[in-house]
Amino acid sequence: MQYPAPIAKLMEGFMKLPGIGPKTASRLAFYVLEMKEDDVLEFARSLVHAKRDLMYCSQCHHITDVDPCRICEDTSRDQTVICVVQDAKDVIAMEKMREYNGLYHVLHGAISPMDGIGPEDIYVAELIKRLQENENIQEVIIATNSTIEGEATAMYISRLMKPTGIKTTRIAHGLPIGGDLEYADEVTLSKALEGRREI
Amino acid sequence: MQYPAPIAKLMEGFMKLPGIGPKTASRLAFYVLEMKEDDVLEFARSLVHAKRDLMYCSQCHHITDVDPCRICEDTSRDQTVICVVQDAKDVIAMEKMREYNGLYHVLHGAISPMDGIGPEDIYVAELIKRLQENENIQEVIIATNSTIEGEATAMYISRLMKPTGIKTTRIAHGLPIGGDLEYADEVTLSKALEGRREI
Repeated sequence: MQYPAPIAKLMEGFMKLPGIGPKTASRLAFYVLEMKEDDVLEFARSLVHAKRDLMYCSQCHHITDVDPCRICEDTSRDQTVICVVQDAKDVIAMEKMREYNGLYHVLHGAISPMDGIGPEDIYVAELIKRLQENENIQEVIIATNSTIEGEATAMYISRLMKPTGIKTTRIAHGLPIGGDLEYADEVTLSKALEGRREI
Repeated sequence: MQYPAPIAKLMEGFMKLPGIGPKTASRLAFYVLEMKEDDVLEFARSLVHAKRDLMYCSQCHHITDVDPCRICEDTSRDQTVICVVQDAKDVIAMEKMREYNGLYHVLHGAISPMDGIGPEDIYVAELIKRLQENENIQEVIIATNSTIEGEATAMYISRLMKPTGIKTTRIAHGLPIGGDLEYADEVTLSKALEGRREI
């Protein structure tokens, strides 16, 4: 016997989460014992609630508790632009910016032949179908990550979209704000130079 | 709207835990959405279970799911020695060592006038009472931390125990194994010198 069974069990639960090893799990588990019972119950309920009540929006595939999601339903938003992102978290990052007012499409991944992820494993077909069914769309902004996979996905989608004639754009690459030229890597620098604009 | 409500709620729950800020909370919450439902339910149940079913042992005040705890109940252990520690976690550290086979007494804190914690706020009186009621005890090992508070508590207990005539010992201070003399602080070094033994 080392830990009493309920603590060992709770530690196991914590250790299933990313970045939590035995030491952190033990610290968290002991902390839970000191928490108010109401807070613990609330936390336990929110775990189950989040897992059970969230789904993907049938239109944009963003996570949501109502279908269609609040962004798709919001008629005050610009219905002519769709921003394509890899992840639900990316939608939240975009929304935090408070400058984009169009719709989204979440791919839930990126094409990565190395990991055996092809176009059929992410929501690309759904995007094309959505564009065919909705004649309002005038621009598709591809905001996948600046990684090899993200770039490959952007390229693939832009090629698929050529026949539709809809304007397709890619977010800019370059030096991040606050970034130092001295410490920028060559690829970023080359992209920044390539994307230069008149001022 | 940024996060759907169930996610925001779950993030709030995670953020109540120590060392978890908004970024980690968001990462963990999104991870939970990808977990198997059974695992999430199991985790939620273990939270409630740990909080509700654990209590302090009426004898040694270690956390336990049965009273008296498994250590106090274990007749194969040496019933003549009590090791006094600050925390339930210290019992687990001692048990991991697998060399100590006596009983424990958990104080749940240390005397700290700075924080307004006096002897009456920790389980000192219970220790003395336990020693008076149990005539088998031959030695009390004080294994509080090597901090000012731990030392003050050790001193206080040893003085209280003088009249009982029971042998009272304090765990050794000195250089940790693998420690470098060069990097040891003066107090540790002075304690190591003071506690030197013939070899």
